[in-house]
Amino acid sequence: MGGHAVDSDTVFSNYQAVTSKTFVVSLMCEFIGVMVFTFLGSTVSDKVFGPWVNGLALAIWIYTAANISGGHLNPAVTFSTLICGFYPLIHSILYIFLQIVGAIFGALLVAALIPDAHVSMGDGAPGCFDNTVIGKGLTHSQLFGWEVVMTFTLISVVYACGVAKPGHGSFTPLVVGLSLVACAGTGGKWTGAALNPARVIGPLAVFKCGNNVAYIYILAHLLAAVLACSIFAFVSGWGPLSPFQSM
Amino acid sequence: MGGHAVDSDTVFSNYQAVTSKTFVVSLMCEFIGVMVFTFLGSTVSDKVFGPWVNGLALAIWIYTAANISGGHLNPAVTFSTLICGFYPLIHSILYIFLQIVGAIFGALLVAALIPDAHVSMGDGAPGCFDNTVIGKGLTHSQLFGWEVVMTFTLISVVYACGVAKPGHGSFTPLVVGLSLVACAGTGGKWTGAALNPARVIGPLAVFKCGNNVAYIYILAHLLAAVLACSIFAFVSGWGPLSPFQSM
Amino acid sequence: MGGHAVDSDTVFSNYQAVTSKTFVVSLMCEFIGVMVFTFLGSTVSDKVFGPWVNGLALAIWIYTAANISGGHLNPAVTFSTLICGFYPLIHSILYIFLQIVGAIFGALLVAALIPDAHVSMGDGAPGCFDNTVIGKGLTHSQLFGWEVVMTFTLISVVYACGVAKPGHGSFTPLVVGLSLVACAGTGGKWTGAALNPARVIGPLAVFKCGNNVAYIYILAHLLAAVLACSIFAFVSGWGPLSPFQSM
Amino acid sequence: MGGHAVDSDTVFSNYQAVTSKTFVVSLMCEFIGVMVFTFLGSTVSDKVFGPWVNGLALAIWIYTAANISGGHLNPAVTFSTLICGFYPLIHSILYIFLQIVGAIFGALLVAALIPDAHVSMGDGAPGCFDNTVIGKGLTHSQLFGWEVVMTFTLISVVYACGVAKPGHGSFTPLVVGLSLVACAGTGGKWTGAALNPARVIGPLAVFKCGNNVAYIYILAHLLAAVLACSIFAFVSGWGPLSPFQSM
Repeated sequence: MGGHAVDSDTVFSNYQAVTSKTFVVSLMCEFIGVMVFTFLGSTVSDKVFGPWVNGLALAIWIYTAANISGGHLNPAVTFSTLICGFYPLIHSILYIFLQIVGAIFGALLVAALIPDAHVSMGDGAPGCFDNTVIGKGLTHSQLFGWEVVMTFTLISVVYACGVAKPGHGSFTPLVVGLSLVACAGTGGKWTGAALNPARVIGPLAVFKCGNNVAYIYILAHLLAAVLACSIFAFVSGWGPLSPFQSM
Repeated sequence: MGGHAVDSDTVFSNYQAVTSKTFVVSLMCEFIGVMVFTFLGSTVSDKVFGPWVNGLALAIWIYTAANISGGHLNPAVTFSTLICGFYPLIHSILYIFLQIVGAIFGALLVAALIPDAHVSMGDGAPGCFDNTVIGKGLTHSQLFGWEVVMTFTLISVVYACGVAKPGHGSFTPLVVGLSLVACAGTGGKWTGAALNPARVIGPLAVFKCGNNVAYIYILAHLLAAVLACSIFAFVSGWGPLSPFQSM
Repeated sequence: MGGHAVDSDTVFSNYQAVTSKTFVVSLMCEFIGVMVFTFLGSTVSDKVFGPWVNGLALAIWIYTAANISGGHLNPAVTFSTLICGFYPLIHSILYIFLQIVGAIFGALLVAALIPDAHVSMGDGAPGCFDNTVIGKGLTHSQLFGWEVVMTFTLISVVYACGVAKPGHGSFTPLVVGLSLVACAGTGGKWTGAALNPARVIGPLAVFKCGNNVAYIYILAHLLAAVLACSIFAFVSGWGPLSPFQSM
Repeated sequence: MGGHAVDSDTVFSNYQAVTSKTFVVSLMCEFIGVMVFTFLGSTVSDKVFGPWVNGLALAIWIYTAANISGGHLNPAVTFSTLICGFYPLIHSILYIFLQIVGAIFGALLVAALIPDAHVSMGDGAPGCFDNTVIGKGLTHSQLFGWEVVMTFTLISVVYACGVAKPGHGSFTPLVVGLSLVACAGTGGKWTGAALNPARVIGPLAVFKCGNNVAYIYILAHLLAAVLACSIFAFVSGWGPLSPFQSM
């Protein structure tokens, strides 16, 4: 699959050699996409718009990045496609690195453009996933469970619409975004609805918030990535880069 | 039609032999789809998001399941396509069974992940259709009428977009989900907007709620399934499996 | 164009002989579509969902009817396509008649399924366009102006997406519905956002409401139909049935 | 590229000779589109609908204009495609002129159809971007930063979906509209979310509002136009009219 031209049918399947300009551009897209997505999603002051701003900002940046980088914009998505054999190791590591750097810059932008926000302000800063956003009475196990179910939903949508053939073509970014709207519309009240390790790490790095719970979110995202990959592999087979491919 | 490869033009028309791996995978898709749809739809704590979470969660799981199981995710849809001759009997029975089991597991997930929720908690539990969600002054006949009109709308959309040719291709899951948004945005205040027997039975089985009204919902859904099938058969003809086909 | 098979590219362009079964089915579609659209749109009790229920109910019923009747569902749309030469006279008259009958049955359904609603209850009944929904301080001229601008928007969308070639195919019903969401989201506070003579006449006939202002709404809709047709004819030419065609 | 027939794959790429009827019609489309978009977007009285009315009104008018004028509807979009070599100079100047005239007429329509609104009413008039809509504590630099980020997002979506090949075809107007929904859903509370110089100039000309801040908005929009063009040129190359093309 490597080295192919852009395949407009499957927005999550194109990549080029790591040293190519195309790949450098892909990294730039992941960086910018996660940065602006993190910024817009972190600054919503009216709860009525929370799920919508996050879901639609994700959708529009996936649309923007889709034909260049595939529009992962989420380390959990990249990790899942890596272990399922749809994306190579070095590419994935670089993607995840740029996604996290993008989220950090997004959080810095929040600190710069929101009055009264400043770096290292601790729990309660805009866009943080910490005890101020976790629902009353929710145990750590329940927090973990919620993030697993929601992230599993989002990554399953990515596989079924964007990786499988026939998928749903240019519907994919919209459907992925709407899956975040649906999850955040209910789970937002319980966990803040992260569904994305970069969204947890960016604000943590900039605002020093959520230190004591960040690992729960991230482990949940990684478990969901494994689950979604496992089910997709059972349903549709492993990716072309998987060692299981030849079994 | 049986045994055909996936037909991307008509997301509700593909199925395989009951003993095939494809069919087992289809059952798994119906199970997972209804489970997560029930979970997300049952836990919405903010009324502003109720119709959206339900409609969008339905849409995204139909997208995810569409090219595998057809994405019925609703016993009323499966029942309607059965009696209209678009889906075989044994397949339909197994689909409906797995959809209901999925809804039960979804309700169990609700009990596990919502603080203060527990099995057998009775009326008022999250996701229940009982006297606590039925609008003040609504008679049982009106409850029945509302659910018939709304479920008829949803199934008619399924037929016109997903079964008829030419339909609306990959728009179908979105349109079906939006039909639930529209119905729940108005009827939600009167009936809770079930439109799906599995969504009634799952919470009833787990939380022991709505025992005295569940039959009204389910009979309404079945009547709507018959109505939608009748009108579709009049407009576009019976399905290939219908005994009326050869008349 | 008459007698052609369904053209999936242009959802507003197919019709058959008045005596054909296809045309009878088209009339039935217009009737059912307007009936349920009127019912769902008239019963919204939460203002937050008003524009959405109306816009999405319109969109899903246009999707459902599109490949059969073209999904006009609005006498102003049918009137505009008639005078622009895209739809024949007898067909149009029958469409408009069935649309109005559908709206009346929709209002009867409202009277049947909403507690405390009953026929002839006068101004303030659900779904009425009367002095109880017209914004404070709005003059009759301003009411007229608002409805012209909004209806002109909706019909222009119909022309550009559904009549013009290339249009926007299966996006058309969604875009038409979203145009109603956008208009109702702002003008709803001033006029109730009718944009459709049937939606005015149905409740008026059943609930005897809005007698003194109904003519303002309907004249505005008709003027908007003429305006949208004129601009479309200037931009893209008259329809195949227009007498101006041969000029 | 000039003189080509309508290219349905790329809604932002068609134009004709300045003296052609097609181009006159394009100017009319830009004028009407911006006029109604400005009117609908300026009159939203319920904050819950603000982002939706603006974003959806933009989307539907881009759909309506797309196959004729390309549906720019925003001087920042036209300016960006000009400097990137996708749209000719004279065409761009005329587009921008008509867009601004359209916004002025839209604001006049607001003055005519909203009770108590009248020309020259100053800050606080409907649709104005002035100190009454700017968030408390926001510095002018932050105002500038917010508008740059948001406008950059919108124009990047235009490039990736509507100019690049393969883009996202008829999804483009929807995605552009949703980018405005997402931005206005968060930045609306801080800047009012203009993202469009015409939307600033129209109300300013009619209501004499925001005189002291208008230049901040407009400079931000122009900088965003340059930024989005630069990144797109780096990613996908300059447009066919660019002098850099031959380098």
